[in-house]
Amino acid sequence: MNAPELKYIGLVQSNIQSPEDAPKNYRDSSQEGSLEIYEEYREAMVDIKVGDTIVLLCWLHESKRDVLKVYPQGDRSKGLRGVFSTRSPARPNPIAISELRVTAIDGTLIHVYGLDFIDGTPIVDIKKKI
Amino acid sequence: MNAPELKYIGLVQSNIQSPEDAPKNYRDSSQEGSLEIYEEYREAMVDIKVGDTIVLLCWLHESKRDVLKVYPQGDRSKGLRGVFSTRSPARPNPIAISELRVTAIDGTLIHVYGLDFIDGTPIVDIKKKI
Repeated sequence: MNAPELKYIGLVQSNIQSPEDAPKNYRDSSQEGSLEIYEEYREAMVDIKVGDTIVLLCWLHESKRDVLKVYPQGDRSKGLRGVFSTRSPARPNPIAISELRVTAIDGTLIHVYGLDFIDGTPIVDIKKKI
Repeated sequence: MNAPELKYIGLVQSNIQSPEDAPKNYRDSSQEGSLEIYEEYREAMVDIKVGDTIVLLCWLHESKRDVLKVYPQGDRSKGLRGVFSTRSPARPNPIAISELRVTAIDGTLIHVYGLDFIDGTPIVDIKKKI
């Protein structure tokens, strides 16, 4: 099977400018920001409501894809770990998952709390939390 | 930005042969099966241990990518819903997320409990559960 090409459905708008400044993960984040969904995907977002917790999938476009072992969160004391046992952004397909609370919706802009992505990160999916 | 190409890192081995036979989601599944990780990604999986709960990301290769509204789980009583408010497999990027318990590891084969994917589903990522 041929590997497929992702479609970007929008972009993160965030005050976080570099990966070093990003919270370690969404549970540690009190950052507010917005998800700018592209107009062609508006119909897919119409049932998202203020107060919802959504599952956001982003493509970490600055991550290395050829790294199979890392020091988790840069901590060398625990040794190198296989990336599939970590939440490292470096991995063959750098897809990150966050759970975010929707604080407001303004057209195709979804305002959220708990963001851990840098400004301009491409969005690839939004799901209902189960 | 150009949208990137995914790399398949392995394939699901499952007794589920069609989407109609699959559990609605991993929380409803008591299916056992295996994740066959390709040899070139072996180093990334070496720290996965029996008893771990892993987060599995698969590419639902049979899903439609041009559908923006669906009847959730085929139930027409609630009306059409934007796919970003559902767990429907139909969506612009049909990436599915499951949480699975590791029951055994045999070389590059990871045996798991709680599978909700059909046999042959491509795997794109494995993460630590947080």
